Amino acid sequence: MYTPIQLQELIEEAIPQISYPAHPSNLYEPIRYIMNLGGKRIRPVMVLMAAELFTEEIEKALDVALAIETFHNFTLVHDDIMDNAPLRRGKQTIHEKWGVNTAILSGDVMMVESNKHLAKADISVLKEVLETFNLTAQGVCEGQQLDMEFEQRNNVNIPEYINMIRLKTAVLLGGAMKLGGIVGGAGKTDADLLYKFGENLGIAFQLQDDILDVYGNPEKFGKQVGGDIIANKKTFLHLTALALAAEEEKKVLNSNLSSSDEKVKLVTALYDRYQIKALATAEMDKYLKEAYQALADLSVADEKKTNFRMLIKQILVREH
Amino acid sequence: MYTPIQLQELIEEAIPQISYPAHPSNLYEPIRYIMNLGGKRIRPVMVLMAAELFTEEIEKALDVALAIETFHNFTLVHDDIMDNAPLRRGKQTIHEKWGVNTAILSGDVMMVESNKHLAKADISVLKEVLETFNLTAQGVCEGQQLDMEFEQRNNVNIPEYINMIRLKTAVLLGGAMKLGGIVGGAGKTDADLLYKFGENLGIAFQLQDDILDVYGNPEKFGKQVGGDIIANKKTFLHLTALALAAEEEKKVLNSNLSSSDEKVKLVTALYDRYQIKALATAEMDKYLKEAYQALADLSVADEKKTNFRMLIKQILVREH
Repeated sequence: MYTPIQLQELIEEAIPQISYPAHPSNLYEPIRYIMNLGGKRIRPVMVLMAAELFTEEIEKALDVALAIETFHNFTLVHDDIMDNAPLRRGKQTIHEKWGVNTAILSGDVMMVESNKHLAKADISVLKEVLETFNLTAQGVCEGQQLDMEFEQRNNVNIPEYINMIRLKTAVLLGGAMKLGGIVGGAGKTDADLLYKFGENLGIAFQLQDDILDVYGNPEKFGKQVGGDIIANKKTFLHLTALALAAEEEKKVLNSNLSSSDEKVKLVTALYDRYQIKALATAEMDKYLKEAYQALADLSVADEKKTNFRMLIKQILVREH
Repeated sequence: MYTPIQLQELIEEAIPQISYPAHPSNLYEPIRYIMNLGGKRIRPVMVLMAAELFTEEIEKALDVALAIETFHNFTLVHDDIMDNAPLRRGKQTIHEKWGVNTAILSGDVMMVESNKHLAKADISVLKEVLETFNLTAQGVCEGQQLDMEFEQRNNVNIPEYINMIRLKTAVLLGGAMKLGGIVGGAGKTDADLLYKFGENLGIAFQLQDDILDVYGNPEKFGKQVGGDIIANKKTFLHLTALALAAEEEKKVLNSNLSSSDEKVKLVTALYDRYQIKALATAEMDKYLKEAYQALADLSVADEKKTNFRMLIKQILVREH
C-alpha cells in the first residue's frame, strides 16, 4: 500500500507528463502553468487512495485522478476571475498574467481536458464514472453561484451556508472518493460510503477553515488572521454570532471600521462572548463524526483504512 | 425520412423539455434563456440527419443532438463575454443581462449539461462519442483563441485564416455530422466521411459569410453591409486583397476613416479591382466540392442523401 505522500508523488510525476497540444501556445501555456503551481493534490490523492481499497493496480485510477485535479484547477481559474483575485498560491493568477479572455478560454479547455482523462476509464465503469463526475461538476458550479449570491444577501441562514460549502467544496471531495472507488472496483454501497466520507470531511474541512481564519496561528495558516472578518464574509462563525448576538452587538459584524485591527479585535471579542469557536468546533466535529462513521461502514479490512485516518489528520489537524 | 424542417421541429420540441435544476435559479435561468432564443438549430439537425442515414430510430440521436446544441450555445455565451457583445439574436447577451460572473458560470454548467446529454449514448458507442466530442470541443476553443490572437496580429496569412475558421466554425459541423453517424450506426469510413462533409461545408459557409458581409443583400443578410470592413476584420477577402494589392492601396484596408460609408466604398472598389469576390467564391467552391465529394463517397443509397443537398442549399445559397 502506498502512503499518502507516495500517492502525492505519483500525481506530481504524472502531471508534467500530461501532453497538451503545442498550439495555440497562449491557450495551453496557462494550463501548464496552473497545473504545475503545486498544492497538496489532496483531491487526486483521494481518488488513488479510494481505488487502492479495492485494487492493487492503482494506475487504473490515475486518469480519473488527473481528471479531478484538472477540473479542480479549472474551477480555480474561473473562480479567480469572478473573485478578481490577483494571486493563487503566491503566483499571478491566469487572468492577471494572460488577461481575462484567455483565462476564460483556457479554463474551458481544461474542462475538455478533464473529460478526455475521464473518457479513458474502463468501459465497464464508464457510465458510472461520467454520471458521478457530471453530478460533482454541476454541484461545484452551483456552490460557486451560491457563494457569489450570498455576498449580496443579508439573510443567509446557517443551513443555507452549510449547503453552499457542501456544494462548493465538499462535493468534489466526495466525488473524488467515489470515483476512485468506482474505478477500483467498489460495489455501489461502498462507493456511496466513500462519497459520504469525502463530503462530510469536506464540510468539516471548510468549517475548520472558518475557525482558523480567526483563531489560527498566522505563521502556520499562511493567511492574514481575521481576513474573513475584515471582508464581512458570511462564515459559519459570522452567521452564528449574528443569530445569537444582541441587536446592538450585531452592528460590529458588518461595520466598516477604518482600522482593520480594531475590527478583528472587536469581532473576536464578540465571538468569544458567545463561545462561537466552541460552537463551530462542535459543528465541525458533527461532520467529522459522520465521515468516521462512513469510513467504519466501508466493507474493507480495517488496516486498509489507515491512510484515510492519516488523511483526516493531515487536512484537519493542521495546526490548532 | 424526416425533412430538415421536421428535424428542426423535433429539436425545438425537445429543448424546452430539457430539465434543469430549479436552484440556484440565477445559474439555470440564463441557460433556459439562451437555449430558447431560437436560431436555425443547424448543428443538432445535422446530428439527426446524419443518424437517419443509418437508422430509422433517430430518437437514438436526440441526446447527442442536444449535447451539440448545448455546447454550441455555451460557446456563444463565453464568446460574447470575450467579444464584449451586447446582443445575440437581437436580445441581450447573458453577461449584459446577468453580469459577467454569472455568464462565465452558466456557460461552465452548460458544458456539464452537454456532457450529461452525451453520457446517455449507448454504451456500445460511448467511447467513440466521447472521443469525437472532446476533440471537437477542443478544436472550437482553439479556434476562438486563434481568432482573438489574429485581432492583435498583422501578419496573418491565408492558410492560417482557413485553419482558424476550420477550428472555430467548421469542426463543430464536422463533429455534429460524425456524432450523428456514430450513434446511428455508421462504420468508421462513413463516420469519417460525415466529418469531412461537415468540416468542408463549414469552411465554405464561413467563406460565404465573409463574401456576404461585403456583397450580400443587407435586407436578407440581416447585418450591416461592410461590417467586417469597418472593423478591419481579417477576413478571407481582406487577407487576399492584402496579398495582391500594391503597397499604396493596402493603406485603405487598415485605415480609420472618419466616414464608415466612405471606407466601405473604397475597400469594395479595391476588392473589385482585384476580383476578390471571384477569388473568394472560387475558394468557397473548392471546399464545397470537397463536401460534395465526401457526400458522394458515403456508402448509403443516393436517395437518402437528398436532405444533405437541401441542407447545403439552405445554408449556402441563402441569398446571393
